[in-house]
Amino acid sequence: MMSAPPYKQLEQEFKRLHAFRGAISLLSWDASVMMPRGSAALRGEQLAALQTEYHTLLTAPKITRLLDRAHANTQSLDEWQIANLREMRRQRDHAIATPANLVSRLAHATAQAEAHWLQARAEGRFEIFAPHLEEVVMLVRDKAALLGQALNLSPYDALIDEFSPGISSNDIDAVFKTISRRLPSLIREVIAMQEARPPLPLEGKFTPGRQRAMVVEIMKAMGFSFERGRLDESEHPFTEGVPGDMRMTTRYDQADVFTGLLSAMHETGHAMYHMGLPEQWRDQPVGRDRGMVAQESQSLLLERLVCRSRAFARYLSPLLARHFGVSGPAWDADNLYAHLTRVRRSTLRVDADELTYPLHVLARYELEKRLMSGDLAVRDLPAAWNAEMEQRLGFQPENDREGCLQDIHWAVGSFGYFPSYALGAVIAVQFIESLRNDVHDLDEQIASGDFRGLFDWLRTRVHSQGARLTLQELLREATGKTLSAAPFMRYLEGKYLESATSSAAA
Amino acid sequence: MMSAPPYKQLEQEFKRLHAFRGAISLLSWDASVMMPRGSAALRGEQLAALQTEYHTLLTAPKITRLLDRAHANTQSLDEWQIANLREMRRQRDHAIATPANLVSRLAHATAQAEAHWLQARAEGRFEIFAPHLEEVVMLVRDKAALLGQALNLSPYDALIDEFSPGISSNDIDAVFKTISRRLPSLIREVIAMQEARPPLPLEGKFTPGRQRAMVVEIMKAMGFSFERGRLDESEHPFTEGVPGDMRMTTRYDQADVFTGLLSAMHETGHAMYHMGLPEQWRDQPVGRDRGMVAQESQSLLLERLVCRSRAFARYLSPLLARHFGVSGPAWDADNLYAHLTRVRRSTLRVDADELTYPLHVLARYELEKRLMSGDLAVRDLPAAWNAEMEQRLGFQPENDREGCLQDIHWAVGSFGYFPSYALGAVIAVQFIESLRNDVHDLDEQIASGDFRGLFDWLRTRVHSQGARLTLQELLREATGKTLSAAPFMRYLEGKYLESATSSAAA
Repeated sequence: MMSAPPYKQLEQEFKRLHAFRGAISLLSWDASVMMPRGSAALRGEQLAALQTEYHTLLTAPKITRLLDRAHANTQSLDEWQIANLREMRRQRDHAIATPANLVSRLAHATAQAEAHWLQARAEGRFEIFAPHLEEVVMLVRDKAALLGQALNLSPYDALIDEFSPGISSNDIDAVFKTISRRLPSLIREVIAMQEARPPLPLEGKFTPGRQRAMVVEIMKAMGFSFERGRLDESEHPFTEGVPGDMRMTTRYDQADVFTGLLSAMHETGHAMYHMGLPEQWRDQPVGRDRGMVAQESQSLLLERLVCRSRAFARYLSPLLARHFGVSGPAWDADNLYAHLTRVRRSTLRVDADELTYPLHVLARYELEKRLMSGDLAVRDLPAAWNAEMEQRLGFQPENDREGCLQDIHWAVGSFGYFPSYALGAVIAVQFIESLRNDVHDLDEQIASGDFRGLFDWLRTRVHSQGARLTLQELLREATGKTLSAAPFMRYLEGKYLESATSSAAA
Repeated sequence: MMSAPPYKQLEQEFKRLHAFRGAISLLSWDASVMMPRGSAALRGEQLAALQTEYHTLLTAPKITRLLDRAHANTQSLDEWQIANLREMRRQRDHAIATPANLVSRLAHATAQAEAHWLQARAEGRFEIFAPHLEEVVMLVRDKAALLGQALNLSPYDALIDEFSPGISSNDIDAVFKTISRRLPSLIREVIAMQEARPPLPLEGKFTPGRQRAMVVEIMKAMGFSFERGRLDESEHPFTEGVPGDMRMTTRYDQADVFTGLLSAMHETGHAMYHMGLPEQWRDQPVGRDRGMVAQESQSLLLERLVCRSRAFARYLSPLLARHFGVSGPAWDADNLYAHLTRVRRSTLRVDADELTYPLHVLARYELEKRLMSGDLAVRDLPAAWNAEMEQRLGFQPENDREGCLQDIHWAVGSFGYFPSYALGAVIAVQFIESLRNDVHDLDEQIASGDFRGLFDWLRTRVHSQGARLTLQELLREATGKTLSAAPFMRYLEGKYLESATSSAAA
């Protein structure tokens, strides 16, 4: 060990950090899925101890010394190793900007805030959550200021950089500018069109056990390995774990056959990305995904561009018949597709359709920037939330449970994350445009339950690239294009303004 | 922090170590209960990283320095703090005797051995397990030699000391000498008596769901908090977790209503001990249990002295009727009791009765001493196992699955653990003799499903003492007696030679 080259020593150090990360992830999964309710404080202590130790190991003088020595001597390294070194430094730069003390306080505060968020949401009482969110906001603002200083970015951009390296609020603003110019009027038109021709209702009682059986069958068809992953239930669906042991959750609604399926498909998009990361780099920084925008591009691509398509509806129709014994015109592919593309002004982001979703995200983006700048106080959040909803979507939630208490992100300190959903949706469309150029019979494949064309392309162009490239480089290599919201808007207009007659032929 | 007294600084350090211990325990639980099969190697890496880090933190020069300074200045400390200091040093002394490199190799080797043990057992092929067990044996022998040197004990006694501080192989030999003098003839007499009057069979199909419901009801009656613990299923029942989040498992047999219940009661004995440990010391060494002999005394006391009693059979009879709809003379308390005290020469330790159990343990004790001394090679273990069984119990298992592959202990490196079962059984009887002196209507309480008298005594005299006293002191304070196998033998003779006529009146 002592005589190994600096780069090799760094690989050893980051291998250990990866093991810590896997342990932390498992503890988080357990907290949401398995842990008894009374054990939250104890788990908070365990997570804080591991996160603090992770931070200590990552910011140790030894790592800095090895990084400097390795950087001075890169001629023997290949492209992946050089990218790995860049990602190592990136992680270390982010970590060292945040003192261990702050990391530990944040871990404690978010554990508390998450527990109280759950309670506040169950009881619909924001005041239970407010003091804990205040504490989290205060600590994240401190962190943003320190990170911004170290990375030479504005505080909010520094937070974005942590989730999605290379993305700035300028990129986000440009995307939202394009989107919000057209979206409100498009939503009005589509809702008017759809109301004139409502789909037949999909009635029934869909037990979680049967829903799960169907979801598992579809996940297996897509290549998800249950030998190296699990699917469980949780209130707020998520994906945790590390490649080799993915832990996904979904949430079933007995009255609605799509909620559990589409949540699971969203998470399957994340999980397939993780499972497709380069195996030989799995315990190194360069073997990780390319940030949350890239992650959401994969989850949204699967959930929306694939699973809310006519082709998928054709695949789904006989599956539903087999798993639930349903039949009749309501369960035809066309009627299913009408449900999968139904546009409604709804209160919950996770239930939102493709058209209204970006506006949900935009509202959160504006609110979290104001929370971070200090322009908005936590106690004023419910009113500000409702005002944003009124302005962007034309209605107000009936209560905070369906309003500012609906998302977990702020409770766990994830400020700067929400924009990933919008950018992810935009990039997903850029990916699938290229994918369709390369896989001409994509729809026929999907309709027949064959997802190889889809995932082979994604694995080759995106998943297996790990963090070798920046997001912009990844996008350019995969599609030949730069980040643009224009294809996204073209896609939405084409899909949602298409006449029912022409579509039935597709 | 810098200016805090050394003792207070140590409390902080051990608080952190406790958080690590909780994380390690959760990862182990998950590996046995939730983890996908293909993730074993990954989990092995995670556990090895955490265990190595735990070891590094515990053996850091800082801890040694603080311990020396705190020992030099104990006049301001109370009895619990002084005991805490003693337990801190004990943990550190054990850890420092084992180099980090060996800890890490053991973690890897046992993860591999456990996975291959599972496979070997499923396929009944010892040769799958043998090379991995060899590796574990070699590493544990190294560890025993180093520990023995550091603690001035024989290698095997050093291993015992890790599980059960203060117990030596002399204590164990004395117990086994008393037990094995009388037990073989007692077993013959009892089997002859019981064969003359066999109980009515308990027939039925007992679904795991219903069994679980009954077990949960009994655990709740005993005071197990499902707000701070879980009950799941695993092939080999165990208790993991830390106070505040106990993870228990059991194993249901659809054809036998007792297997799952009695396994769960055994583990509930462990869990109640953990849950009753002193809350204010929960993250400190003195707040831990007093080793594995004390642990097994609690699990065996509940499983055998309580749950295999006439009083418990009276409690159980109406419960079985309610949960399974059974009725008739086979389900009367007397017939249930006859089943709960049935003596059989059986192959599996976990299914063994009170009389044959100590001989199963004695066989393992003799075998593991020989494995440790190098007198017995791993490849010769199956033959040696069968010879021991023939000698002690008068029969041989039909295959290694029911022979030397039945227990997990050696796979995970737990040599020196088995004797805890025998000593635990002995001490359990000493505890309950005292308990009966203090709680005169214990049987009436238990028969009515009231376990407060039982657990109040155990909590006061045993659980809440944590590791303040040595095991011998704990026993003396609780019972006024020293370790002796005589009460155990009196108990067995009284219980198993009692005539059916006199017993029916109790």
